[in-house]
Amino acid sequence: MTVVEAVRWSVDGEAVDIIDQRLLPNELVRRELRTADDVCDAIATLSVRGAPAIGIAGAMGLVVALARHGQDSREHFIAATEALCERIGNVRPTAVNLPWAMERMCRIARDTPGSPSEILRLLRAEATEILYEDRAMCRRIGEHGLELLPETASVLTHCNAGALATGGVGTALAPVYLAAEQGRRVHVFADETRPLLQGSRLTAWELTQAGIDVTVLADGMAASLMRGGAVDLVIVGADRIAANGDVANKIGTYALAIAARHHDIPFYVAAPMSTVDPRTAKGCDIAIEHRDSDEMREWNGTRVMPPSASVYNPSFDVTPAELITAIITDEGIVRPPYAFVARRNSGVAAG
Amino acid sequence: MTVVEAVRWSVDGEAVDIIDQRLLPNELVRRELRTADDVCDAIATLSVRGAPAIGIAGAMGLVVALARHGQDSREHFIAATEALCERIGNVRPTAVNLPWAMERMCRIARDTPGSPSEILRLLRAEATEILYEDRAMCRRIGEHGLELLPETASVLTHCNAGALATGGVGTALAPVYLAAEQGRRVHVFADETRPLLQGSRLTAWELTQAGIDVTVLADGMAASLMRGGAVDLVIVGADRIAANGDVANKIGTYALAIAARHHDIPFYVAAPMSTVDPRTAKGCDIAIEHRDSDEMREWNGTRVMPPSASVYNPSFDVTPAELITAIITDEGIVRPPYAFVARRNSGVAAG
Repeated sequence: MTVVEAVRWSVDGEAVDIIDQRLLPNELVRRELRTADDVCDAIATLSVRGAPAIGIAGAMGLVVALARHGQDSREHFIAATEALCERIGNVRPTAVNLPWAMERMCRIARDTPGSPSEILRLLRAEATEILYEDRAMCRRIGEHGLELLPETASVLTHCNAGALATGGVGTALAPVYLAAEQGRRVHVFADETRPLLQGSRLTAWELTQAGIDVTVLADGMAASLMRGGAVDLVIVGADRIAANGDVANKIGTYALAIAARHHDIPFYVAAPMSTVDPRTAKGCDIAIEHRDSDEMREWNGTRVMPPSASVYNPSFDVTPAELITAIITDEGIVRPPYAFVARRNSGVAAG
Repeated sequence: MTVVEAVRWSVDGEAVDIIDQRLLPNELVRRELRTADDVCDAIATLSVRGAPAIGIAGAMGLVVALARHGQDSREHFIAATEALCERIGNVRPTAVNLPWAMERMCRIARDTPGSPSEILRLLRAEATEILYEDRAMCRRIGEHGLELLPETASVLTHCNAGALATGGVGTALAPVYLAAEQGRRVHVFADETRPLLQGSRLTAWELTQAGIDVTVLADGMAASLMRGGAVDLVIVGADRIAANGDVANKIGTYALAIAARHHDIPFYVAAPMSTVDPRTAKGCDIAIEHRDSDEMREWNGTRVMPPSASVYNPSFDVTPAELITAIITDEGIVRPPYAFVARRNSGVAAG
């Protein structure tokens, strides 16, 4: 089974090798990012996307960009590292993983004694560690989620929370990949996910690459599919989880959750524990980003509505905890009532 | 207030004057259909669409096409009429209004004594009558529906069941037009309606032409809009209504009905009594047309999913009667429990 690698080291180790996701599904073009400009541009233009994936690309990109500072004085090298971390970390400030990864890299640089080349060696190891941690996290989500899949499973998902969004087998798609790996029969129904079509463009593409059966449907078709008995369970990703278990995810998720409840179909959210924000008490405390109306007004360059019509285009919606059957995390399956708390040391516990 | 006229006689009365709906919302082009080829082509290519509108266009198109047979013998004229009715009536055989209108015209031709020119005069009157009947029917739906609108109303709708689909002010949009006519404040939220975007392309366009506020949203966004309290009621059209009140309508309608119920928002269907098919006992007896997968695979000419992915693309779904607050017909508002029966003479009664 081929699971695509959204982000990896180039063969010579001197570049970050990414799939240019803007060209999918029509062209599989890998790009090698060799400078800070390359890295920032790839993140800004959504060539690489998905919160975990851009954190990884940022950390690896820092190492690549610092290579030409290997002969600098230690002082200059640390200053260059700090400036680059600041710059890369701000390309998309809303995704938590990117500033988190850059902060972690910066701390390593400051805390490591020795010459720039010694620091650089440790930074490279740390970036690789961030990639591998994410890969392991995806696998653990997959292992926990696998328990929830019937022997032959039809899984409905929304947007892309797969390999293209992470360093591994994804979050929502992780149980699907693991089921396929074990030779179990699994079929995925992918909402196309308006307005940006991450479902048809990305989810369908990465699953066909792995030889997994996938059927694409328009977002408004999911309910009739459920009524027909074709869906065993729904698994979606999450952008932010509140302490009470309310989940912010790609717009359209909430409608799916309501339809799943109406048909008594289990509705699962899959995300690493790091997506839980215990300082956010409830879903209504999550600010919802509204995006450019042109995403709705234009259809591959053609206008599809009169200019004087208004547009409602939120990027996310909030699914209340009471509609969520369970949350599949890297630390296990969390069931309601949800009450996440901050741990003393760090991280979050399903308190 | 300008309500667009989808179908009308040309100024000289020798052509059917239609809006070419394929070019909306970017160009308002009216076309004059002067031959049987013109009429069949306009219906086949969806230049004119909506079940009532194509019935009207077919009847008027017959008159226009028969003009050159005015000097034929009566026998030849009747034969030409029958052949044209057969041909036009079969361009889109699934919509019930088109064959119904052609049958009605054909009966007039056969039952009218006298010369071809006398028959032609009656056929023209009959086609005009079909147009005016539809216009009056839309208005009655609007008048009945108006009682259900609060003084300041936010109405959510799906697809296009407006002026562009009928000879008058539409079905689902009829109460909206009448409210605006009376100077009441009314705002429409229009689902874009994937895959063919009738909501953004057509509904938003005709409402802006009438100066009515409209906001377009992707189909998956409706639930979050409802949760935010922005929607007072939902009104949709219908393609076929079963005896028990189950309604077949554009795909995506069922998901809306579930979301409306979840938020305790009234969900209305607006349709003439002729849309009720008392011979269809329940929604599950309605055959659902599945359309070409290219509607989902392509995005204004660009492929948006891998060729090996499958596509689920039903054109309609069925909303069960228990989710429908009331059905707004030209004969009044029908409330559950629904039990439509065929009348002795003809037509349907809410038995």
